[in-house]
Amino acid sequence: MATQAQVITCKVSLVIEEVEVAPPQAGEVRVKVLFTALCHTDAYTWSGKDPEGLFPCILGHEAAGIVESVGEGVTEVQPGDHVIPCYQAECKECKFCKSGKTNLCGKVRLATGVGVMLNDRQSRFSINGKPIYHFMGTSTFSQYTVVHDVSVAKIDPKAPLDKVCLLGCGVPTGLGAVWNTAKVEPGSIVAVFGLGTVGLAVAEGAKAAGASRIIGIDIDSKKFDRAKSFGVTEFINPKDHEKPIQQVIVDLTDGGVDYSFECIGNVSVMRAALECCHKGWGTSVIVGVAASGQEISTRPFQLVTGRVWKGTAFGGFKSRSQVPWLVDKYMKKEIKVDEYVTHNMTLADINKAFDLMHDGGCLRVVLDMHI
Amino acid sequence: MATQAQVITCKVSLVIEEVEVAPPQAGEVRVKVLFTALCHTDAYTWSGKDPEGLFPCILGHEAAGIVESVGEGVTEVQPGDHVIPCYQAECKECKFCKSGKTNLCGKVRLATGVGVMLNDRQSRFSINGKPIYHFMGTSTFSQYTVVHDVSVAKIDPKAPLDKVCLLGCGVPTGLGAVWNTAKVEPGSIVAVFGLGTVGLAVAEGAKAAGASRIIGIDIDSKKFDRAKSFGVTEFINPKDHEKPIQQVIVDLTDGGVDYSFECIGNVSVMRAALECCHKGWGTSVIVGVAASGQEISTRPFQLVTGRVWKGTAFGGFKSRSQVPWLVDKYMKKEIKVDEYVTHNMTLADINKAFDLMHDGGCLRVVLDMHI
Ligand SMILES: NC(=O)c1ccc[n+]([C@@H]2O[C@H](COP(=O)([O-])OP(=O)(O)OC[C@H]3O[C@@H](n4cnc5c(N)ncnc54)[C@H](O)[C@@H]3O)[C@@H](O)[C@H]2O)c1
Ligand SMILES: NC(=O)c1ccc[n+]([C@@H]2O[C@H](COP(=O)([O-])OP(=O)(O)OC[C@H]3O[C@@H](n4cnc5c(N)ncnc54)[C@H](O)[C@@H]3O)[C@@H](O)[C@H]2O)c1
Ligand SMILES: [Zn+2]
Ligand SMILES: [Zn+2]
Repeated sequence: MATQAQVITCKVSLVIEEVEVAPPQAGEVRVKVLFTALCHTDAYTWSGKDPEGLFPCILGHEAAGIVESVGEGVTEVQPGDHVIPCYQAECKECKFCKSGKTNLCGKVRLATGVGVMLNDRQSRFSINGKPIYHFMGTSTFSQYTVVHDVSVAKIDPKAPLDKVCLLGCGVPTGLGAVWNTAKVEPGSIVAVFGLGTVGLAVAEGAKAAGASRIIGIDIDSKKFDRAKSFGVTEFINPKDHEKPIQQVIVDLTDGGVDYSFECIGNVSVMRAALECCHKGWGTSVIVGVAASGQEISTRPFQLVTGRVWKGTAFGGFKSRSQVPWLVDKYMKKEIKVDEYVTHNMTLADINKAFDLMHDGGCLRVVLDMHI
Repeated sequence: MATQAQVITCKVSLVIEEVEVAPPQAGEVRVKVLFTALCHTDAYTWSGKDPEGLFPCILGHEAAGIVESVGEGVTEVQPGDHVIPCYQAECKECKFCKSGKTNLCGKVRLATGVGVMLNDRQSRFSINGKPIYHFMGTSTFSQYTVVHDVSVAKIDPKAPLDKVCLLGCGVPTGLGAVWNTAKVEPGSIVAVFGLGTVGLAVAEGAKAAGASRIIGIDIDSKKFDRAKSFGVTEFINPKDHEKPIQQVIVDLTDGGVDYSFECIGNVSVMRAALECCHKGWGTSVIVGVAASGQEISTRPFQLVTGRVWKGTAFGGFKSRSQVPWLVDKYMKKEIKVDEYVTHNMTLADINKAFDLMHDGGCLRVVLDMHI
């Protein structure tokens, strides 16, 4: 493209208006972001409540776009490729990638964790010469971003980018929590705490896995109707009960559920999710991200009597290998994506979009980056 | 035997001297206990620190003996059979037994949990007509005891009962934590917290499973020498370090261990055991039993980044099916048992035996029940 090797000046949210995006260096890819969705991790960091947040930075990690140019040595993508930036990298070479046991790649984490690129430990974003930090290795709230080549998945160019951008975070997280982390078997009884995008994707994944009962728990009863179409078979609002929610569920299920998923980020709910599991085998998966510094706790007896406590990041999916597979599944109508998009706006409306996330009716807001 | 259907009067520890042991009712077995070992669960309850302890009761759950008589409908054992009483029952019929996922049987738990027999919800022990509670469904500190038929494993009559009594608790717990609960693979790096009987059995199990490094952690450096012969390859005494023990281990192992086992019963060590596990896949198994009311805690991030927190009861072994198999493995010299017996005494010395358990040199004290 004509912009190759040039600094690009473009619009970016949130507070800043024009940012300079340096060309990609060795092993880097500059992506023209076309659509980006908002996730709660962005909102949490944006709120300033994350003590580990580095400011100023460019947020955003659930997006889709087109490769604008690539740096030296980049072979797996080229300008024009349709891609989804991946906050979980996959280098296929590090101890983690080669273990066959996890999707957490170690290659660029030390750089992305502090908002810079691995090559020179600098940012590619700047405003008037002052560097602006990257966020989660993706920073998709900018019209152009630079990511490591291990952090970008090449997808089917026929896929609608305004939809499949969701496959960069929330939907795969929920599906993978069920398929990869818990490995739910047919006939299982499942409890899903929190019926936002992630919880609904858990329900969808559990239904596909053949769960016999999918119990949805949310403090907002308005969530229940929609949840049915994602596979939830029963609803509980903890506010309707005096007993602790774990007791309510144990009573309803002859001893507890086979699998539970916390999709909220609340440490007391994480405890309830563990304790509503069946003695002997019940497995609870933490999906929600708690505020920094908060701790989970329980009596060790809960584990000694056979319950298992796990967690998941990006649903255990290997990003570069499996995001394209998820896109294909969507194209074959085997997984939902459109159904999670409740609002469409433009980058100019991003502040309104953040407000919308506090509204019960909202799942995902997709921003068109063409202002 | 001549005592069949008669009340038996015999000696019993701890404070009491003569107890009457009623004949077994339907589904029950009266066992002449020949040898019993002391385990920390007995000591804990004996100390009166267990708020759930029911007094007066007859403790003891790691033993071996001979069936004296059986109640109506008992078909799987008969008088003269050599047996190991099992505090984890196995009925082969309940939801738990049939799940194929756990060794925790539900059949008699509601009775044994409150110190009585299932049939009439009464105790078979009495002194001057006053009932004395059962303990863990076994009460092996009496020369005769009555257990449910689902709580007794028939073993090879050639096995030395003064040794295989240990297969009633501590040794299988450690071996099974490795083989059944964690499923340690060849080449794994393992950390064992606490080098008592249970921790040494974990080390032995890990060695048999092909672990490449077995790191033993104990605050008593005298434990280290003996631990080598059980498979421990490296030792750490937390008192020699200023850094938290989890950090010491992470530094020593390029990111953490593949499996860790807490064999102490200390909730802070349980946290350290989880946090010394490798990101992405490290699994920690709680084996130690914490004091009542204590809680474990950690940051949920530990689980979201791939660590797994589990526990084990009786090492996940199905008691009636697998204790005889363990006895056979011992007879074929495939597992150690003799090496865990550090002291032999008689029932009359039981108070001395309890004192010995606080001594670093002591693993298991075996009591000959012939006073
Ligand atoms: N582990 C990962 O890789 C990963 C990836 C993406 C998102 N997340 C996290 O997953 C969580 C869910 O994300 P989302 O986008 O679905 O959020 P969301 O806000 O849309 O959904 C949360 C739901 O939980 C409900 N809720 C709140 N408090 C509750 C309580 N005490 N009991 C029951 N229900 C309650 C809310 O009403 C809402 O419906 C967030 O914490 C997010 O950060 C984790
Ligand atoms: N889950 C089960 O089914 C099951 C079965 C049997 C025993 N147990 C439990 O396993 C635990 C161990 O039993 P045991 O018989 O081996 O006990 P033990 O007392 O012989 O061994 C405990 C060891 O831990 C060491 N230790 C104490 N505090 C420590 C600390 N802070 N850091 C490092 N080391 C420390 C001691 O020096 C000792 O060597 C007990 O809690 C017991 O109740 C559980
Ligand atoms: Zn990697
Ligand atoms: Zn059973």
